[in-house]
Parts: sequence; structure tokens; C-alpha cells
Amino acid sequence: MHSRSQIVQHIAIVGGTHGNEFSGIYLLRHYEKHPELMQRPSLTCQTLFANPAAHAANKRYISCDLNRQFKTADLANPALTALEQQRAKDINTRLGPKGAANTDLIIDLHNTTSNMGPCLILTQPGRFYDLMAAYVRLQMPSAVISRDEDHLAADDHALLCTVGRYGVIVEVGPQPQSVLRQDVFEQMHEMTQHILDFVELYNTNSLPALPKVTPAIRYLHSIKLPLDADGQRLGMVHKQVQDRDYMPIAPGDVIFTLFDGSEICYEGPTTVYPTFINEAAYYDNNLAMSLNEKVDITLADADTQGHVGISRGAI
Amino acid sequence: MHSRSQIVQHIAIVGGTHGNEFSGIYLLRHYEKHPELMQRPSLTCQTLFANPAAHAANKRYISCDLNRQFKTADLANPALTALEQQRAKDINTRLGPKGAANTDLIIDLHNTTSNMGPCLILTQPGRFYDLMAAYVRLQMPSAVISRDEDHLAADDHALLCTVGRYGVIVEVGPQPQSVLRQDVFEQMHEMTQHILDFVELYNTNSLPALPKVTPAIRYLHSIKLPLDADGQRLGMVHKQVQDRDYMPIAPGDVIFTLFDGSEICYEGPTTVYPTFINEAAYYDNNLAMSLNEKVDITLADADTQGHVGISRGAI
Repeated sequence: MHSRSQIVQHIAIVGGTHGNEFSGIYLLRHYEKHPELMQRPSLTCQTLFANPAAHAANKRYISCDLNRQFKTADLANPALTALEQQRAKDINTRLGPKGAANTDLIIDLHNTTSNMGPCLILTQPGRFYDLMAAYVRLQMPSAVISRDEDHLAADDHALLCTVGRYGVIVEVGPQPQSVLRQDVFEQMHEMTQHILDFVELYNTNSLPALPKVTPAIRYLHSIKLPLDADGQRLGMVHKQVQDRDYMPIAPGDVIFTLFDGSEICYEGPTTVYPTFINEAAYYDNNLAMSLNEKVDITLADADTQGHVGISRGAI
Repeated sequence: MHSRSQIVQHIAIVGGTHGNEFSGIYLLRHYEKHPELMQRPSLTCQTLFANPAAHAANKRYISCDLNRQFKTADLANPALTALEQQRAKDINTRLGPKGAANTDLIIDLHNTTSNMGPCLILTQPGRFYDLMAAYVRLQMPSAVISRDEDHLAADDHALLCTVGRYGVIVEVGPQPQSVLRQDVFEQMHEMTQHILDFVELYNTNSLPALPKVTPAIRYLHSIKLPLDADGQRLGMVHKQVQDRDYMPIAPGDVIFTLFDGSEICYEGPTTVYPTFINEAAYYDNNLAMSLNEKVDITLADADTQGHVGISRGAI
């Protein structure tokens, strides 16, 4: 038998961290009306509408991006008093505290304007995440697994879901800001249900046989739009790259078109795989896309046989 | 010969009427850097960035929708002092005054989040518009012609471009708010160039042979998302309708999916053709889509032979 404390018992599903990403907000409302959709025998599940003020204003945020306010030092800094900074502290009190959280898993629901389909973003390394990734991909082959666990290695993660013991983001697109698309809504619902099913199977050592290797991507860094000396944009994402999230960009491939008609090529040393291509919310910082490498998530042999979960072996 | 006053001489290209529709704003900047793109021998062309304050805030508008502030009575009403109401009066002074305008043609550049492709919206009936529609469709077969000249028949049009003697909207999508897509940018540029070419050919009685009949759509009315008694949305645009702008909706076809899983069908008496399906900006008013009928734009025989323009016959 295993330690009771290993059970992933307290789950929070969070929507509206960004006020103009509608799928999570409407999915929360739907789950609150139909709580049976969140119920599994081994766990309890609560919902949290993270930034209703931003949603009321139909904006991503009021003062600053809520999903960048969860570094431990910032949560402890009394000088940070903007609306989202205050809200981050409230959420940390309610779902955290970060580092010693009462919440075992936070599932934060997001949309992107990029053509990313249903994407599961893992914010830490570890066996729990690896098993979740393998299970979700097995149930939902269209899902893409994205590792984003260490791009802030010099600091701790600023994302809301990192307040929990475990934290993942369900990121689905393409959906314009302030729009609700049925296809995107259904993909978010499906992935969230698979995650809840996974936790139930994990808690009860009932996972099915899982593939040894699950393909994934791992965040490397972001690249900016070309700018002039005054910070004005000189061009845009090349139409050969637009909508082609996850498709390889090799050294020498075009990535930007300038308004003067010329083209800019990718000059990195290796082939990379873009995400968040031309995401509306990243224009503030002139970010054009994120670049990733391909990685494999490899399970231990014992974890591929089924009837595993919290414990490494069979019950 | 024809009267000099019939020449469409003074043109204004307007962008940024909505601050988060980026294509027009960037196209204006491009034209200002390359004024030769706006030049034609028989006309002069100026640009106007209609709502820079809204663009700076990365919003459609600050106080109210600028593109609804141009009714003659509103322009004359000193009690209307909100930012966009003031701006409308400024624009009316600069490009109008409405009803006796110094500007012969206003081309207002817009984006939609809907899958409408390049759409030319005509705001009044008349031969000038009919010839423009036939010419633009001939040059750009992907263009859709939309007649929106009389849906405010009981009042006068509230749109910015109606300040000019003639006014059209270049409406291109799909593009999320606050995003610039190269494909959409290029379609807007192409349609704008065809309009300027048309005016030059019209002014000089040099139009080519044009088709007798040009297919178009005509705006009928809008329909709202299903709401509960508290005004909360009960559902969303059906995924079978999403992205299918211009495709027929027949009586009995599904149009909405409710969150409870049930479907709502279209109950109108005749087949209609939707536009602005699930447009982000129309959520404020819970508008789900606009409905249109198919119409033909039919030219007089004399106008189909070529070498026509201002005058009805050959020179």
C-alpha cells in the first residue's frame, strides 16, 4: 500500500484567468450547473473564476497579466497591490499556499488565437505528469503535450496553476479573444474530463497499459517581431508559418514578411517547432511565436503494464 | 462630355475606426510610407486613422462604437460628448459634412473575426456602386459583394463611411481582434487597390466590359444568441454553422447548440445566407450572426460594353 498523502485528492478547475478567453469561463459555468461532470470517487473538485473583473471588462486583464503574478517572492511582496497582484494573493490563500498547497492539482483553462488545437501544458517534471501525458494522449490522440517546466529555471514559475502541488494548463485554439466556438469548447471539455479520469485511475492504481514513449514538445524561447529603432513593427508572421503551429521550422526557412515585401528567415542552428504563432495577447511584448524542441516522454517499464498509479508496482 | 462635379476626385482611406482591427491600421501606415500606392491621375487620396485612442488601448472603442455615431441628428447633437461622439464630429468636419461632403468616396477598412474572406460592403444603392461591385468582382473573384444600403431605412446610416458622398467598407476576415495576418492584410490591400483602379477608370470613362449580372447578398436582419430570463447565454453558434459565412441556412437547419446539449433550428420562412457568424465584437449585444438574402446586381446594357464610367454612353 501507499501513503495516503500521495493521493491527488483536492482538485481546482480554474477558468477566466484571462477575462477574454471564453471557453474556460463557459465550461466552469457548465460544470457548476452539472457538478456530476467533476465528480470522481477518489477526489473532490472545486471551480474558481479567476478574474471576473477582467471578464466584465471583456479584457485579458485590468492592470497586469494575472497569469504572471504567482512567483513566490511576488506573492509575499506587500508592495504589489494592483488588481491582479491582489487577486493572485487571494488565489494563493484559497488554493495554495504555493509550496505547501492545500490543492493537489490545479487545472487552468485557457484559449489561444493560435492554431494549437487541444494542448496540455505541463509545468513541472515528474512521474505524475508523465503518466498524465501518456494517458491523455492515449485517450485523445489529437492532444499535444507541451513541457514548460523549466523555462523560468532561474526563478520560480509565475503561472497561476503552479500554486497547486501539481498544475497543468489546458490550452485550446484557435479561438479569437472574446468568442466562444463550439469545437474549441468541446475539445476543452474532453481534455478536462480525461485529466479527471486520469487522476481517479492514478489514485486507485487502475491506470490502463500505457505506451512506453509519448511524443511531446519542450519550450525553448520566444522570438519577437522585427521592429525598427522606434519599436514600430516592420513586418508580420509569414503566411507560410501562420496557422502551422507545431510544424518544423528549419534554419533558413522564412518566418517573417516585412511590409516592404522582403522576407526574414529563421537563423537558429537547429529545426524548431513553433507554438503560439501570432497569438493576439503577445502583441504587447511584440512576441511572434514560441519555439520548441521535440522530446519524448518515456515511462518506466513498470508503468506501462497497467494497474499502476500512485504506487510504482501492482497493488 | 459630362459634368466635372461628377468626378470622384477626393478619396479618403480610413483605418482604425475600430482600434483592435489591425489590418487597416497597418495598411494605412504602409500607404503613408508609399503614397504612390494611393495615387491615380484623376483623383487625390488622403488617409485617416479614425480612432488612435482606441488602438492605443487595444480596444474596439473607448466609450462607444465610433462606427455607430454618424447619424445626421447625432452629429448635430451637442449633448453627445463621449470620446467617439466627439471624434465623429471631428471626422464629419474633416471629411464631410454629411450630406454635402467634400470627400467623394470614403473607403473604410475593417476586419471581422468571422470567416468572411474579402467582402465589399456597399452602403447606398446606385449606379456608381453597381459598377464598382461588377469591376471588383471581375478583378477579384474571391470578393463577396454585400449590400447594406437600407437596413436603417427609418433613419439615416450611422456608419463612418456614409459621411462621404459615396462610402464603402472593405471588410476582411477571419482575423482575431488585435492580430495582423499576412493573408488578410494582402486581401485588404488588393481590394483597396481595385477600388482605386475602379475610380480612376470610372472618372476617365475607361471601364472594361463588365458582366451584366454580379451576384451579391443583401442584409436582412441579425439574430441573437439564445438567452435565459436573466440575459445569460444558454448556448453558442452550432459548429455546423461556425465558419460557414455565406452558406445557405434553410428553415429547419440547426443554428445553435445549447450547453444542455440540445439544438436550436432556424425557424424563418426562407433560406438565408449568414455573415458575421460569431463575430467577437457583436457579443456586447448578444448578436449571433447577420442574415442576408441573395440578390443580383444588374447593369444597364450600355454599362456592360466597356469605355464607360461617369457618362452613361461611350465618350
